[in-house]
Amino acid sequence: VLRHLADHGPISRPDLGDGVGLARATTSSTVNDLLRRGLVAEVSTMPAERRGRPTTLLDIDDTNYAVAGLDIAADRVYLALHSLRGRELLRVERPGDADVTNPRALLRRAATVLHEGLDVAESDGRKLLGVGVAVPGLVDASTGTVKYVPSLGWRNVALRTGVAEALGDRAPVLVDSDANFAALAERRSRLRAGTAASSLVYLSGTYGISAGIVAGGRLWCGHRGMAGEVGHLIVDPAGRRCECGRTGCFETKAGLVAVLDAALAGRKQGHATSASRIDEVVALAHSGNSNVIEALAEAGTWIGRGAAMVTALLDPHLVVLGGHYARLAPWMLETARTAFGDALLVTDADGPSLEVSSRGIWGATEGAALAVLMSIADGDRPLPD
Amino acid sequence: VLRHLADHGPISRPDLGDGVGLARATTSSTVNDLLRRGLVAEVSTMPAERRGRPTTLLDIDDTNYAVAGLDIAADRVYLALHSLRGRELLRVERPGDADVTNPRALLRRAATVLHEGLDVAESDGRKLLGVGVAVPGLVDASTGTVKYVPSLGWRNVALRTGVAEALGDRAPVLVDSDANFAALAERRSRLRAGTAASSLVYLSGTYGISAGIVAGGRLWCGHRGMAGEVGHLIVDPAGRRCECGRTGCFETKAGLVAVLDAALAGRKQGHATSASRIDEVVALAHSGNSNVIEALAEAGTWIGRGAAMVTALLDPHLVVLGGHYARLAPWMLETARTAFGDALLVTDADGPSLEVSSRGIWGATEGAALAVLMSIADGDRPLPD
Repeated sequence: VLRHLADHGPISRPDLGDGVGLARATTSSTVNDLLRRGLVAEVSTMPAERRGRPTTLLDIDDTNYAVAGLDIAADRVYLALHSLRGRELLRVERPGDADVTNPRALLRRAATVLHEGLDVAESDGRKLLGVGVAVPGLVDASTGTVKYVPSLGWRNVALRTGVAEALGDRAPVLVDSDANFAALAERRSRLRAGTAASSLVYLSGTYGISAGIVAGGRLWCGHRGMAGEVGHLIVDPAGRRCECGRTGCFETKAGLVAVLDAALAGRKQGHATSASRIDEVVALAHSGNSNVIEALAEAGTWIGRGAAMVTALLDPHLVVLGGHYARLAPWMLETARTAFGDALLVTDADGPSLEVSSRGIWGATEGAALAVLMSIADGDRPLPD
Repeated sequence: VLRHLADHGPISRPDLGDGVGLARATTSSTVNDLLRRGLVAEVSTMPAERRGRPTTLLDIDDTNYAVAGLDIAADRVYLALHSLRGRELLRVERPGDADVTNPRALLRRAATVLHEGLDVAESDGRKLLGVGVAVPGLVDASTGTVKYVPSLGWRNVALRTGVAEALGDRAPVLVDSDANFAALAERRSRLRAGTAASSLVYLSGTYGISAGIVAGGRLWCGHRGMAGEVGHLIVDPAGRRCECGRTGCFETKAGLVAVLDAALAGRKQGHATSASRIDEVVALAHSGNSNVIEALAEAGTWIGRGAAMVTALLDPHLVVLGGHYARLAPWMLETARTAFGDALLVTDADGPSLEVSSRGIWGATEGAALAVLMSIADGDRPLPD
């Protein structure tokens, strides 16, 4: 019921009953329970065409709770607070710790940001329903353990436990890859816009490249929760060495660091952060710098090839470029689409498309917050009182 | 109900009701309808531990119907007739037409084989429930159109219509890739053996390499039905030209033709069929021929890398090597497993395994027959009277 309301609300009681396929009495008692818990609200709307009394529709309650999405990236920590309907209440962005390879230090930084957000939520009269934590790597979502994040150098970090402790166990914590969470956000935004989204692959252009796979309207996480690891597919055995230790990984061609290195080759970098390097690349591209524009176009070609590999295996409706790719897309999308089309064995009218996320780097926090609501809807977490 | 019986039969009425999650009355009326149509039978079994009266269990009826699986490969046509419980009633193998690129000629050959099978089924008192037709390539299963089969040179062939005409529209026809059908057969055989099978990827080692993807217990076919196209992933841009026109495709490293060419390099081939070349390779490998053994080991390495690419994206329980790979596995599996392990970013105790199908080249016909039953169970085709 919660899932259907999240996807389709506001909606009338009979339409809700039809949508979830439950008997009238069951739907009704479930709705009443959710109303009592403050998760669902009745909304009055005046019918557009008819006169007469306003209709009472049901929707996710937007007032009582907040859900938090925390994104721990290689050089920044992002926090967003959302209402249950996905309205963004707060957005905080802070530089990460200098020594990202130390999970404790980065976790302390993340906890500080998280507490800032919670203070805002509480002063706003909202109870925290849960926290979704995104990292750019391989996560065992069932235990909340980070298995491996090449860009942070983390292996086997009990992130869920760490964040839950920092929160004083005030709310449930979910951990997953940034790509998985962002794929959920992408699905919802497309569903609400009325565009096809039952199967999509979201390519995260953060400090790694992961894929979030939505199939049949749901996230496909794989047997161990590690599906979507595209960054270390070997696409060029004769290529460069990757930080994972192998040669010719997709990230050495299309990963953010590789793209920035190529675009800024020969320029003095000093101790520039990645964020300032992206700003520099965007400014140079805008000013028509041909080296930068060429490097971005070349990266676009590799991104298109990678998207085609994912498509060959999964045949989704569309592949979405997210994260920092969204900002660099004006100089990458054309070559990416050409390479994507060239690499597909069969191209036809209803073939898959390659598109840019409207979410940018905030897709992961949005999806992380949404995932908390979804996990409650799926019965994976208890309902709040 | 049919699907549950196919996976779990024989089973008692109450267990069936629990398994499908329907109300008692609904289950009962459904079962009675299926009994009347001869799709389900009551089976008496004497309890093992207790004395007393035999229990009546329900199972798929094995006596009234036959389902046919037809596999149109590059140099051979395979037909198997199965009972609804998956017992093989007949197996026929014929050389294909010399001019495989002509769909009409190959279809005529296939129709002859199919009619032979039907005569056997009818003389056995069985009605044909349907025909599943497998091809080694990209299929739009919803329309039964073959989009592209590189090894046959087919593009946009209305195969379902062709086979249905050859059958005089006597029974419904399903068309899909050999890998998809074989993956279904693999899932059932593992389910019956009690081994994990809710997510698996079957790699078809026929005249192309396709993947059949089972996720959440079901086939994942993709938006256009073209998921699993691994054969033309570009794994080595510096490699050899492929028959699809591109360079360095997975098939140029691990496809059957590439493997046979490498193993028999320098030997006189004449007009040897692929089947006889496989026999020759197996005989030479058995005799300890080091060139052949080395070529198979090298192919194994590439197969392991390809299996790892699929695993990185999908994270299945296991990857299964099928088709002709099964026969060549004694000389390929060791290097395949090593390369598979080396290519995975995270290896742990419950990591995915790389295994060999017990089905060999008959997996596709078995799965094609099974798919007919499944499509009726899913309501995609009407129930027979």
